[in-house]
Amino acid sequence: YGKNTIKFLRLHREGKKHFVKEVEVCTHLRLTSAQEYLDGNNSLVIPTDTIKNIVLVLAKKNGIPTLEQFAIDICKHFMTTFCQVAYVKTYVQEVPWQRLHENGVPHIHSFICVPDGIRFCEAEQCRNGPLIVFAGIKDLKLMKTTQSGFEGFFKNEHTTLPERNDRILCGELFCKWSYGECRDFDFDCIWYMNKIRECILEAFAGPPDCGQYSPSYQKTVNSIQMLVLSRVSQVEVIEVVLNNTFYNVVDMKNLGLNNDKEVLVPVETPYGSCACTLGRKKFLEA
Amino acid sequence: YGKNTIKFLRLHREGKKHFVKEVEVCTHLRLTSAQEYLDGNNSLVIPTDTIKNIVLVLAKKNGIPTLEQFAIDICKHFMTTFCQVAYVKTYVQEVPWQRLHENGVPHIHSFICVPDGIRFCEAEQCRNGPLIVFAGIKDLKLMKTTQSGFEGFFKNEHTTLPERNDRILCGELFCKWSYGECRDFDFDCIWYMNKIRECILEAFAGPPDCGQYSPSYQKTVNSIQMLVLSRVSQVEVIEVVLNNTFYNVVDMKNLGLNNDKEVLVPVETPYGSCACTLGRKKFLEA
Amino acid sequence: YGKNTIKFLRLHREGKKHFVKEVEVCTHLRLTSAQEYLDGNNSLVIPTDTIKNIVLVLAKKNGIPTLEQFAIDICKHFMTTFCQVAYVKTYVQEVPWQRLHENGVPHIHSFICVPDGIRFCEAEQCRNGPLIVFAGIKDLKLMKTTQSGFEGFFKNEHTTLPERNDRILCGELFCKWSYGECRDFDFDCIWYMNKIRECILEAFAGPPDCGQYSPSYQKTVNSIQMLVLSRVSQVEVIEVVLNNTFYNVVDMKNLGLNNDKEVLVPVETPYGSCACTLGRKKFLEA
Amino acid sequence: YGKNTIKFLRLHREGKKHFVKEVEVCTHLRLTSAQEYLDGNNSLVIPTDTIKNIVLVLAKKNGIPTLEQFAIDICKHFMTTFCQVAYVKTYVQEVPWQRLHENGVPHIHSFICVPDGIRFCEAEQCRNGPLIVFAGIKDLKLMKTTQSGFEGFFKNEHTTLPERNDRILCGELFCKWSYGECRDFDFDCIWYMNKIRECILEAFAGPPDCGQYSPSYQKTVNSIQMLVLSRVSQVEVIEVVLNNTFYNVVDMKNLGLNNDKEVLVPVETPYGSCACTLGRKKFLEA
Repeated sequence: YGKNTIKFLRLHREGKKHFVKEVEVCTHLRLTSAQEYLDGNNSLVIPTDTIKNIVLVLAKKNGIPTLEQFAIDICKHFMTTFCQVAYVKTYVQEVPWQRLHENGVPHIHSFICVPDGIRFCEAEQCRNGPLIVFAGIKDLKLMKTTQSGFEGFFKNEHTTLPERNDRILCGELFCKWSYGECRDFDFDCIWYMNKIRECILEAFAGPPDCGQYSPSYQKTVNSIQMLVLSRVSQVEVIEVVLNNTFYNVVDMKNLGLNNDKEVLVPVETPYGSCACTLGRKKFLEA
Repeated sequence: YGKNTIKFLRLHREGKKHFVKEVEVCTHLRLTSAQEYLDGNNSLVIPTDTIKNIVLVLAKKNGIPTLEQFAIDICKHFMTTFCQVAYVKTYVQEVPWQRLHENGVPHIHSFICVPDGIRFCEAEQCRNGPLIVFAGIKDLKLMKTTQSGFEGFFKNEHTTLPERNDRILCGELFCKWSYGECRDFDFDCIWYMNKIRECILEAFAGPPDCGQYSPSYQKTVNSIQMLVLSRVSQVEVIEVVLNNTFYNVVDMKNLGLNNDKEVLVPVETPYGSCACTLGRKKFLEA
Repeated sequence: YGKNTIKFLRLHREGKKHFVKEVEVCTHLRLTSAQEYLDGNNSLVIPTDTIKNIVLVLAKKNGIPTLEQFAIDICKHFMTTFCQVAYVKTYVQEVPWQRLHENGVPHIHSFICVPDGIRFCEAEQCRNGPLIVFAGIKDLKLMKTTQSGFEGFFKNEHTTLPERNDRILCGELFCKWSYGECRDFDFDCIWYMNKIRECILEAFAGPPDCGQYSPSYQKTVNSIQMLVLSRVSQVEVIEVVLNNTFYNVVDMKNLGLNNDKEVLVPVETPYGSCACTLGRKKFLEA
Repeated sequence: YGKNTIKFLRLHREGKKHFVKEVEVCTHLRLTSAQEYLDGNNSLVIPTDTIKNIVLVLAKKNGIPTLEQFAIDICKHFMTTFCQVAYVKTYVQEVPWQRLHENGVPHIHSFICVPDGIRFCEAEQCRNGPLIVFAGIKDLKLMKTTQSGFEGFFKNEHTTLPERNDRILCGELFCKWSYGECRDFDFDCIWYMNKIRECILEAFAGPPDCGQYSPSYQKTVNSIQMLVLSRVSQVEVIEVVLNNTFYNVVDMKNLGLNNDKEVLVPVETPYGSCACTLGRKKFLEA
């Protein structure tokens, strides 16, 4: 029980310069008892209102140094404070506020929301178990207008898809990786030093002057996983989901025109999805 | 890979009388191979376009006798036809079209969409494993304006919630149960004969003339599970999730009025969620 | 300025029987002054917080006899109380809670949300002008599986649509009508006695045993308008918008099957929309 | 009738470098006739399918030089080709694809979706009337964490809002302006040379080192209008709507903490909205 979506903004001031972190936090608890379900005995139940208060108090006291550290702090608080908690999981997602710039000068207190990928993290712990930390990015919409195809697939009497070696690859990426058991990481440092976001974009797009041919969504997903695992040593396992949008070349023969992949329409459904989880051991074997 | 959202309408005619089933189908496959990820070798990959064709062909040939039977047929088709499929899962959800009535007379070909709960089902199978069937109802929004409270809960320095013995209980229900290993059930017969929907509503609301006091969301969730398990012998395990909307009584003292729970405002976030899975063994023990 | 979305629930008790109205209210004001825009002088500005308080206080004091009467009361309050208000418009929309029934017996305090069409209304008034009342229903999704076609339309070199005399007509209806200058109507009485909803459904679907052929969306829209105007004398003008969903018959020739309009897929975009406003004078002329 | 949402992507290649414009187009027609409504006579009706074809053909033939020019071309085509068209309006909205960069190097065919404000335009024409062109930006989410207040407003017995001189101002901007009668403008040139987007951000935020105090949403709206009108001579009238999100400072006294505007929660409803249209004449008078 006890998922609890809490949205709030943490404002931090250094002199006249302001820093904002707006987050959405979900904390999920499992108790050791079952009496609240069976007997309606609430004596061990921590109200969601109290969960909310704890999250806000922790934000007030410690601020939000990084999303991951904040999630860890919340998990630790619940595990330490409440002996009836058997399991705790905390998910934190960030509203992508960016500082405004005017002619290259950063504004001291104005921000713009730029949702080109949403950072999130998760921390979870069972009583007597390790605290595991995950991080990720979602809602990242990318497109390649060439260097993508799909050929040589399995065919039978239900196959109508033609083979294609030059199609548009467009999709929304969800990437989530595990840092394994919680250690004393500076998570933003890992994020920025290893350029994880840039790494994902690079694996998707290939070199800027020529790109890299993708023979399938599966291979693109795998390329992203391989590159992140090879560049970021702290990542243990990485899951990537690619929800594709197909683009059909409009047939204009009836309209007397030859459409050489110039006008395409997105197909909303059916859409495909390709998900894969890749761990380091598997990577080493490969 | 290979989730695939397919929306379509199956029209069935008996003389001048029309019957419609509009569904959304997601089929998810896992292959025995990994070469498509590692080498970009697509020779075993079944395109999502082919998956779509298969679903539409099965709908054309067999119709949709029940959601569950249709999901079973799809799973069996993939397991039987493609030896490279290691696992298949199919989710089917229904658009809630109801036949129009004019002065009590049913219309032969006109329908209205009444989304007061959406029926869905799921079938899944691993190669060499049993075919498991789930069914459920979601997006069912219910409200009790009294006979609900929350008292005697755990308190500490972060507790600010007052105890209440007369509050509004409002939420969206998600119920999903397992029929266990696939047998020769008439699933619509189970649904209608056992009045599963009515059973859920009854457990939520209590007797029509007085209701039944709910000491917590947890207890209401448990009541629904217990009643379904006791009334419907084919159900093996049932999961219920209740996403609550809180209603705050507006404090009107500053406005010179005494608001006796007459005017309340819904609180969008934080919202709570209460999820529980209950199986028959646990039930028997209880 | 001053649109203000307020959601609240008004609970009314008669003994142990409870009645709920949950509404969403938007009140829009225009002031006679411009100084708040030009000089930042707020002395005539009524804060949206005050607007919210007024709406809640009116709900507490008078209840919500009908949506229309409530919207009228709000407009009158602002016009009467604040001489700086030049124009006021209030929109009220209802959450479609229905009383639960168990085996035909109505429950005294339990409700289910059944969103098969949302009732709304609007009242507006300029200073020194009449108070005009509108009402309507929206989000009403209807489907006819036959008795619909589209033939004899204008053709030129850009036309690729084939003529069809048996297609599916499916769409979402928005209907809004004017009761003209506010009089002492019992608006729920007009709604229920004249069976406005039933009237719309009947005009869409035709007789239950055979339906009525629709040669175009335009004609269906007009039929609804004509029937409401002829049956409900208090309605002065009626606007109807029909947002269509197209269904394409899946071509299964490549799959070796003959699909006789049995399997169809909805086309999400492009979708068409057909809007028309019809007044009584025009009606009389016609 | 005849609104028609068409989504498509126009791909333009210059050697190996690709350029994309993905747009959503709505074309709305009004015919001189009424016979399709009254008699079901479709002989003058242009099917929405034909409208779609025309839009796609124009995109294929001319490309999309600018959103505005494309909207103008569509309007002109309908007015010139079909004498039964009495009025045509075309709305075009852009999907915000941006070219990917890797270490500062632009990628030749990869793009990322960055929805920090959506550009749109509209062109409309009545037969024998001028062709009017509008442009705008919407879904632009901005925040100032100080330099905003609301004081000296109108008070009466329903006022509970305290005066504040340091609050968060956060909202979503919708700006739409008219370029007046269509002339031979290079619309992207106006947009980029005049830095319209930067102009809106600057008026919202004030100087980067200190900001500018906003005494009300109304005044901020007016500042944006004034700055755009003064900087961009081609703009004749500008409408600005600011949908505010309020942030409440969490009261932590019961939790033993002093929250100095460090932790705030967004209030989803009631939200306020402030809309104003300002024309050049009015501007000159002021």
